Amino acid sequence: MKNNFVGRVFPAPFTFPKRGMRKIKRVYLDNSSTTKPSPEVMCKMIEVNQDCWGNPSSLHDIGRKAKKELDIAREHVADFLNADVSEIIFTSSGTESNSLAILGTINTYARLKNKNHCITTEIEHPSVYNMFKKLENEGFYVTYLPVDERGLINIDDFKAAISKDTLFASIQHTNNEVGTIQDIAMISTICDEHDIFLHTDAVQGIYSDLDVEKLGVDLLTISSHKLHGPKGSSALYVRNGIKLYPVMMGGGQEQGLRSGTENVPSIAGFGKACFTLSLARSNAFLRLNELKLKFISGIKKAIPDISINGHLFQSSPHIISVVVKGINSESLLLLLDMYGISCSAGSACNSHSITPSRTLKAMDLSDDDAFSTLRFSLSRFNTEEDIDYVIERFSSCVKSMRDTHLRGGEDN
Amino acid sequence: MKNNFVGRVFPAPFTFPKRGMRKIKRVYLDNSSTTKPSPEVMCKMIEVNQDCWGNPSSLHDIGRKAKKELDIAREHVADFLNADVSEIIFTSSGTESNSLAILGTINTYARLKNKNHCITTEIEHPSVYNMFKKLENEGFYVTYLPVDERGLINIDDFKAAISKDTLFASIQHTNNEVGTIQDIAMISTICDEHDIFLHTDAVQGIYSDLDVEKLGVDLLTISSHKLHGPKGSSALYVRNGIKLYPVMMGGGQEQGLRSGTENVPSIAGFGKACFTLSLARSNAFLRLNELKLKFISGIKKAIPDISINGHLFQSSPHIISVVVKGINSESLLLLLDMYGISCSAGSACNSHSITPSRTLKAMDLSDDDAFSTLRFSLSRFNTEEDIDYVIERFSSCVKSMRDTHLRGGEDN
Repeated sequence: MKNNFVGRVFPAPFTFPKRGMRKIKRVYLDNSSTTKPSPEVMCKMIEVNQDCWGNPSSLHDIGRKAKKELDIAREHVADFLNADVSEIIFTSSGTESNSLAILGTINTYARLKNKNHCITTEIEHPSVYNMFKKLENEGFYVTYLPVDERGLINIDDFKAAISKDTLFASIQHTNNEVGTIQDIAMISTICDEHDIFLHTDAVQGIYSDLDVEKLGVDLLTISSHKLHGPKGSSALYVRNGIKLYPVMMGGGQEQGLRSGTENVPSIAGFGKACFTLSLARSNAFLRLNELKLKFISGIKKAIPDISINGHLFQSSPHIISVVVKGINSESLLLLLDMYGISCSAGSACNSHSITPSRTLKAMDLSDDDAFSTLRFSLSRFNTEEDIDYVIERFSSCVKSMRDTHLRGGEDN
Repeated sequence: MKNNFVGRVFPAPFTFPKRGMRKIKRVYLDNSSTTKPSPEVMCKMIEVNQDCWGNPSSLHDIGRKAKKELDIAREHVADFLNADVSEIIFTSSGTESNSLAILGTINTYARLKNKNHCITTEIEHPSVYNMFKKLENEGFYVTYLPVDERGLINIDDFKAAISKDTLFASIQHTNNEVGTIQDIAMISTICDEHDIFLHTDAVQGIYSDLDVEKLGVDLLTISSHKLHGPKGSSALYVRNGIKLYPVMMGGGQEQGLRSGTENVPSIAGFGKACFTLSLARSNAFLRLNELKLKFISGIKKAIPDISINGHLFQSSPHIISVVVKGINSESLLLLLDMYGISCSAGSACNSHSITPSRTLKAMDLSDDDAFSTLRFSLSRFNTEEDIDYVIERFSSCVKSMRDTHLRGGEDN
């Protein structure tokens, strides 16, 4: 089939689906970027927006109703983390929670304890990594721990980085690009021994057991829109006894730590999302693991030279990072998108970046491999049929792109 | 009628409405605390949550749809302020916008221009006032301009406060407790002459013409949930050419000034709210002025010794601050609430405060008068019938409370 694209023979997958094919199947596999609010979350949000839309600081009826919704949501989130309600601070996003955790702790304790050293990793989310880069400009010393080719830090490296000046560590629970899970419980034991505050960004750790007692962390971030809750809310767990210094000043909401009228409808939806996920989590974990294995074995069978980034076992069941050698991941992403499949090249936060992913480089991938990496991130609402469809389309798209490259080479 | 309340004769208004009366009329006059999302805003939010819930940084279809909604909302908000789309930064709340305006400007320019003095007023919202208090601890000098008994600053005071070290001024557009409007256009001319950055918190100025060109400000804050938009979004106008330093670091959204996944459904609702208000604003202004005058004359007729705080003319048409001598405003608020009327004692941000309102004290009210002040804040959706009902109930409640006090005095 010829078309007028500079005389190039344009293979089938590059043409738009024909008129009769317009109603294409849609499979969303970019749940680490954001998730669709679940039906029960939508109901909750609409209900609160219609009936409990007051300002929870107001003393009148509609204010008290809003306050009640806020309290219920706080209970749900606290239960999800096995925390006390007094330990949950609602903010507007994972980024804000991470900001508050880092700046809040450092601003309170750096002078008090006369310590100015922090530890983090090379593969943190930009909201943690860039905050530490900013702190370096302000006179703090920061150790960025390297990771191995599976994305794991070495516990001995962590121990070696500790000095008498070490105040604070922020170690990601589950990596957002490759899904590798760090041993936070082990790290928290070490931190306890050395009087170091430990924060973990658990935004992607939603299918793990995020019991703060078992993890032993002092601060932990989760975000609503990553677990089928609405956008606009996140929680920072702050262990009782830790005094943070607020980043924003104002009306003193959220124990003075996060001023500004609470986004009650979003927070109520977040609470609902935590509640339903806590009921579904163990089943979801097993199902997602099966889907992940099915997906990996399916695409490996079709395209044997692909490789999977990240840890094979110590990894989230919903994140699959795939290197498709010789293929530009952005082109493949756009081609899959034409077939209704949503995925990500790297992570959404870096989607327009022209430099290779910092996380993948830290895992010792070449630039070429980093630029050939696609991330598929599942949700507990994905089905086996979804995975079958994606395996089929992924395989045909990769094959046709490779064919085109070959033929393009012949043409020129 | 006797009840068992320590033998006290409990007058009718203090008893709960009887079973047959349970379906009471509801009139919400606390729109300065928060407003109910309008039906078209709700439709927009539901639509975006269902169909465009992607991450606007994602390259695929559902991400691009979200990006498009974000762009449309930005246009609406920019039009509302007569600004360029590149000058609108979305944040999560008015508090965050104020924070970013103050810290962002100071962190960029204080060293660059070697200036360390700021000017603000004694009646700012806590998100501005408390931020300046924090900056004082960090070595900045801040002048808090006094106001007269109507809540207006004196322009000569402003001029007198300026020194060669003055970098930044933040002057509230419309006061949240009494509605007095400052002459921002005049102040901006003075700031221009002295190379001072001017920010205005216009969160309550929604019924005024917030044309940033006419106002001449460098930075301006508005908030979605004060104008019948959803909670969780706000905009900071930043004049082109001004470089702010971000408060939160991360994925670099909103021109790097406000990292974190954009709350697209809320922002889309915010855009819709700005669009509908911009069509309705001039009519709403006139109608609200009429309702305000009707309300004031109605309650003055019934209770002649009440007084109104704030400026008579240079004032927002939606805020009415009333001193009811000898009455504890919180008790009156709760009594009115039993009759379905929502209002506020001071402002929601300070509703649980045990100290008298800073704003009212700055306007030279006695502690007693400050504790006897109720704020009624209208919305363009209030009707004449609402106002009639509130006048009637307000009058009867005040009379019965005063009777009770008198009788209580006789009893003891």
